[in-house]
Amino acid sequence: MYFFVNDYNDICNPEILENLKNALDERNYGYGFDTHSENARKLIKKAMNYEDCDIYFIPGGTGANILGSASGMRQENSVISAKTGHIEGHETGAIEATGLKIETIKTEDGKLTRTMLEDFYKNFTTEYMTVPKKVYISNTTELGTVYTKEEIEDIYDFCKSNGLYLFIDGARMAAALVSEKFGATLEDLPRMCDIFYLGGTKNGMLYGEALVIVNDDLRRNFINLQKQKGQMMAKSFVPAINFETVFSKEGGYLEGARHAHEMAKKLASGLENLGEKLYQEFQSNQVFLELEKDRTEKLKEFAAIEVNGHTEDGKDVVRFVTTYRTTEEDIDGVLEEISKI
Amino acid sequence: MYFFVNDYNDICNPEILENLKNALDERNYGYGFDTHSENARKLIKKAMNYEDCDIYFIPGGTGANILGSASGMRQENSVISAKTGHIEGHETGAIEATGLKIETIKTEDGKLTRTMLEDFYKNFTTEYMTVPKKVYISNTTELGTVYTKEEIEDIYDFCKSNGLYLFIDGARMAAALVSEKFGATLEDLPRMCDIFYLGGTKNGMLYGEALVIVNDDLRRNFINLQKQKGQMMAKSFVPAINFETVFSKEGGYLEGARHAHEMAKKLASGLENLGEKLYQEFQSNQVFLELEKDRTEKLKEFAAIEVNGHTEDGKDVVRFVTTYRTTEEDIDGVLEEISKI
Amino acid sequence: MYFFVNDYNDICNPEILENLKNALDERNYGYGFDTHSENARKLIKKAMNYEDCDIYFIPGGTGANILGSASGMRQENSVISAKTGHIEGHETGAIEATGLKIETIKTEDGKLTRTMLEDFYKNFTTEYMTVPKKVYISNTTELGTVYTKEEIEDIYDFCKSNGLYLFIDGARMAAALVSEKFGATLEDLPRMCDIFYLGGTKNGMLYGEALVIVNDDLRRNFINLQKQKGQMMAKSFVPAINFETVFSKEGGYLEGARHAHEMAKKLASGLENLGEKLYQEFQSNQVFLELEKDRTEKLKEFAAIEVNGHTEDGKDVVRFVTTYRTTEEDIDGVLEEISKI
Amino acid sequence: MYFFVNDYNDICNPEILENLKNALDERNYGYGFDTHSENARKLIKKAMNYEDCDIYFIPGGTGANILGSASGMRQENSVISAKTGHIEGHETGAIEATGLKIETIKTEDGKLTRTMLEDFYKNFTTEYMTVPKKVYISNTTELGTVYTKEEIEDIYDFCKSNGLYLFIDGARMAAALVSEKFGATLEDLPRMCDIFYLGGTKNGMLYGEALVIVNDDLRRNFINLQKQKGQMMAKSFVPAINFETVFSKEGGYLEGARHAHEMAKKLASGLENLGEKLYQEFQSNQVFLELEKDRTEKLKEFAAIEVNGHTEDGKDVVRFVTTYRTTEEDIDGVLEEISKI
Repeated sequence: MYFFVNDYNDICNPEILENLKNALDERNYGYGFDTHSENARKLIKKAMNYEDCDIYFIPGGTGANILGSASGMRQENSVISAKTGHIEGHETGAIEATGLKIETIKTEDGKLTRTMLEDFYKNFTTEYMTVPKKVYISNTTELGTVYTKEEIEDIYDFCKSNGLYLFIDGARMAAALVSEKFGATLEDLPRMCDIFYLGGTKNGMLYGEALVIVNDDLRRNFINLQKQKGQMMAKSFVPAINFETVFSKEGGYLEGARHAHEMAKKLASGLENLGEKLYQEFQSNQVFLELEKDRTEKLKEFAAIEVNGHTEDGKDVVRFVTTYRTTEEDIDGVLEEISKI
Repeated sequence: MYFFVNDYNDICNPEILENLKNALDERNYGYGFDTHSENARKLIKKAMNYEDCDIYFIPGGTGANILGSASGMRQENSVISAKTGHIEGHETGAIEATGLKIETIKTEDGKLTRTMLEDFYKNFTTEYMTVPKKVYISNTTELGTVYTKEEIEDIYDFCKSNGLYLFIDGARMAAALVSEKFGATLEDLPRMCDIFYLGGTKNGMLYGEALVIVNDDLRRNFINLQKQKGQMMAKSFVPAINFETVFSKEGGYLEGARHAHEMAKKLASGLENLGEKLYQEFQSNQVFLELEKDRTEKLKEFAAIEVNGHTEDGKDVVRFVTTYRTTEEDIDGVLEEISKI
Repeated sequence: MYFFVNDYNDICNPEILENLKNALDERNYGYGFDTHSENARKLIKKAMNYEDCDIYFIPGGTGANILGSASGMRQENSVISAKTGHIEGHETGAIEATGLKIETIKTEDGKLTRTMLEDFYKNFTTEYMTVPKKVYISNTTELGTVYTKEEIEDIYDFCKSNGLYLFIDGARMAAALVSEKFGATLEDLPRMCDIFYLGGTKNGMLYGEALVIVNDDLRRNFINLQKQKGQMMAKSFVPAINFETVFSKEGGYLEGARHAHEMAKKLASGLENLGEKLYQEFQSNQVFLELEKDRTEKLKEFAAIEVNGHTEDGKDVVRFVTTYRTTEEDIDGVLEEISKI
Repeated sequence: MYFFVNDYNDICNPEILENLKNALDERNYGYGFDTHSENARKLIKKAMNYEDCDIYFIPGGTGANILGSASGMRQENSVISAKTGHIEGHETGAIEATGLKIETIKTEDGKLTRTMLEDFYKNFTTEYMTVPKKVYISNTTELGTVYTKEEIEDIYDFCKSNGLYLFIDGARMAAALVSEKFGATLEDLPRMCDIFYLGGTKNGMLYGEALVIVNDDLRRNFINLQKQKGQMMAKSFVPAINFETVFSKEGGYLEGARHAHEMAKKLASGLENLGEKLYQEFQSNQVFLELEKDRTEKLKEFAAIEVNGHTEDGKDVVRFVTTYRTTEEDIDGVLEEISKI
């Protein structure tokens, strides 16, 4: 069975387990007030070459999205998101459960643009509409597409001009950073938004996301919000050790993602060579293939994948996800099998 | 430095790390749909000798308390808790953040009784009051006290007679189960309430709580609620492996707790032998000592502890927590030092 | 100035003021426990020929929509609505502010159909999506269109088959009941949904909506929810006297609406005779006209209207609303003026 | 039957009905954008001799309390209130339903003091506690007691020093203003807190409360919050006419309250002359009498009153409320009857 179903099917990068083992005899303070958390924060700030921010370790993506969305918001506020945004369609109403409405914009490729935002935002002028206060984007997006640095800078410029915060969901930020398309580095991130996170769970860690808060409004009382939303681990030093491990070596955060990206690229071009049709052009470690339903059934016999949606003419949109553990043999093998169905 | 500050200062029981290492080559499905989760659930059900329930693995205690409180509730409902209840004073308003009011009862020792509940509940008869629908208790309590089996059965009987659910916060359930006072076993738990959890984080696990849902009303759509509240780990097989490890051997869940209990007992009687005054009689792995403020300052020089509150006459209430890693030498040593201050 | 801007620009039907004056010497109990409330409920039940329901008097439409949506809901639940539904676009996120997500369906004319609901509902099968529990429709709709009795019966049948509640927003229910299209009577209403309201504010009353709750699940503890959401008037006998006045005479609830309907019909056909294009075919007391922007500016010089949106080719969609006070002269006059621009 | 059950049992001051009648032929814009609202605001500002604030007309007290509490709050924030505060015990969890925790302080007489606040507030230093951001007081209080001007100024000074907002629930503000104890005027109010309301419902109006917002943080987007919480009347000109009527004449807002106060004073001293024991010394139009349960039963035969609680030795605490309609004969009569039981 070829396993392309997601990028969180592994335990973790073995070095992380080693470092947890090395810490077995320690006694650490709880809730992020420990030396591993301190050190991990230091390493991340160094990698970003940016000091003036706060970093919190969050157990998973939904929690990071709740905090990223709810921080700094008053009750009349709302979040603007693409209709395909993870917070809109994949979090069981988690944002609304905190009382906030998500105001959505339809897009072709999962990406908002400055122009879309300008056109949309100017409608919010009456008392019977919410007061948008934050824009949510994800990079890479839910469709595997990738924003360019300039596109996000344009959006952030719009946000700042209108008193809106910009939140970047970075569950797959490593995948974005290694994509040819993004053109940004870790150093750019805290300079292009108010709050974002560096995903760990989908990037080879045991668990954890590093939420980076740049804007002072959002930094204020953040720790209380983290606790309130059930996103503060008692043993916060455990996710901290994950990030400490990875950020201890130059470029460590991108290492696995880079490999996953190469494997996805190989898969995408392999599929195109077979005459298959991609639903979105290749940009990151999620490859979306259009497939007739009967072929999907056959595919499922030898590959673990996910059907993510449907094309307008009724074909399945099948998602292949590569990871730091995907091998060249996996790609060659699955392509060979696909050529037979 | 003697470390008695809490029971979540360690990485974990080393066997758990071993089992995570053994699983490094696996590929598992996400969100609890994996074989480790399946097996861990099976083992827990077997230890409880109880099949007709659902079990979910939750990252931590706050999350388990949010879910335990919010499950099955309508907007006009409220939760009844002791004023000292963890959900009232230690969760940054997490329950209220889901829209629910907590209706509180003052107690001496952190424990509700059937009589208290009867007296309190009968006031909720008018439209300007909430409609209580759940009772929250914790065992062991926030004051280290322990409910007896009969006390909880009485409370549960009251709950059932009045259409209320009973939720037991089990962050320290292992400590309760090994206490002389409780007199209940794992088998009793699903028979004495509607929903409860078996704490992992404070019982030697890397992280995770096993939330056991017995009542059908609360089982319905629970997985959606878990996701919504940010309490579903993508790699849910990680906490599952924690529980799998511990429940794989007969009595494994209580092993470390039993040791911690013995150490706490030794500490409590040692303190009394020194003529010190305990704030609550010894019942579990949290020992509370009354101490003049200047002595607390001296204590802090050789022991990591927490000041948890104050007596009416202005003394500190100092909390010592023992764990599966506390040694006889730790106890003897700290007692010796205390005798000198 | 011709006034077509809305149907809540008047004080009220003068008989209501008379009856308030007649009650000046009374002393009444608060919160709906008075004899006027009792009598008004009796009269409404008689007009519906339906006893087994509860009726509450709510100050306004937003409140009625909050209560209609939030009643009986658990935290994982959501409400299904047309994208144009009032709760989605015109209540400043009031439903989300109670923690509930609205799952929306695009429509042409503001009306859901059974088929749409079937197609939409079958997607809600995973843990990362909400659990729909209620369908919201309005009659008349936000676009002035009207459901037929059969269309709603089909929707209700779908709801019952799937364990969903049906809530009908009746802010303009009188306008629907007098429309040729609906084909239902007051007697039909409690038999075709679980909860609905009979609008007063937009039907000549001083203020107030009568919320009728048929389903036992939703009747339970409703009064507590009403108080919690700030929708219980201390002097609830005041809106009760409004409904008492109107329902005291046979057909009284529809009297003013019938006149408004005739005036709207006259306006719609008059506009068509002038060669104007209606945005939706005439169905009720809201008439929507497509108008070039420069003509809208001229229209505003002699008519108070509202621009409600835009056609795809950039014209304004101008809304004319008739009321029980609109006269034939108003219609003739405004048509004459329009013919000149 | 002597009617002392509450101060909202009447239709209203007849002049208000007259003015509604005079407006029958008008057509007014909705949602507070009408000339009556504009004029009423002007008159209130003039009476306060204070321009730099916003005024909104809210249907009732619960709504005003929801808005007063929720305005300007972020999700980690909480409201501090006396344990007897209306928002804590009499609003069915309305504040918590917006996601906010109420942190409560026990008092003897329903009044917070600066010292209490200082002692309480200094505990909120950890991540597991909420971040208080607003203090709620009511004047007159739920126990009929009255703050002095200096007491509130002290509290407000504390609030400003600590970045907290002060909200005064003024459901019975007229009763406070005419009390000998308060010593403040309408002019003082906007200078001694951030947000407050002038109650109408309990002061002879048909319905409505005038919420006055002084602090710029709270003024921002307030209209959106008002709509979201279901507290914006479509015919907002109706409550506006109520306030316009009363504020049109010098001292008009206090006229009825002054009479009610005199009647309450007469009742209180009459009761004391009969040797009865008051539960709180007389301060405003709510008089609380301690009564043996069997005497309460006899009292109920000739007087409509409310039993509000119980003394520690088991007596009833019976509340008598006087209004602008209470007559000297009512007082003499009820005292005579009480002397016989």
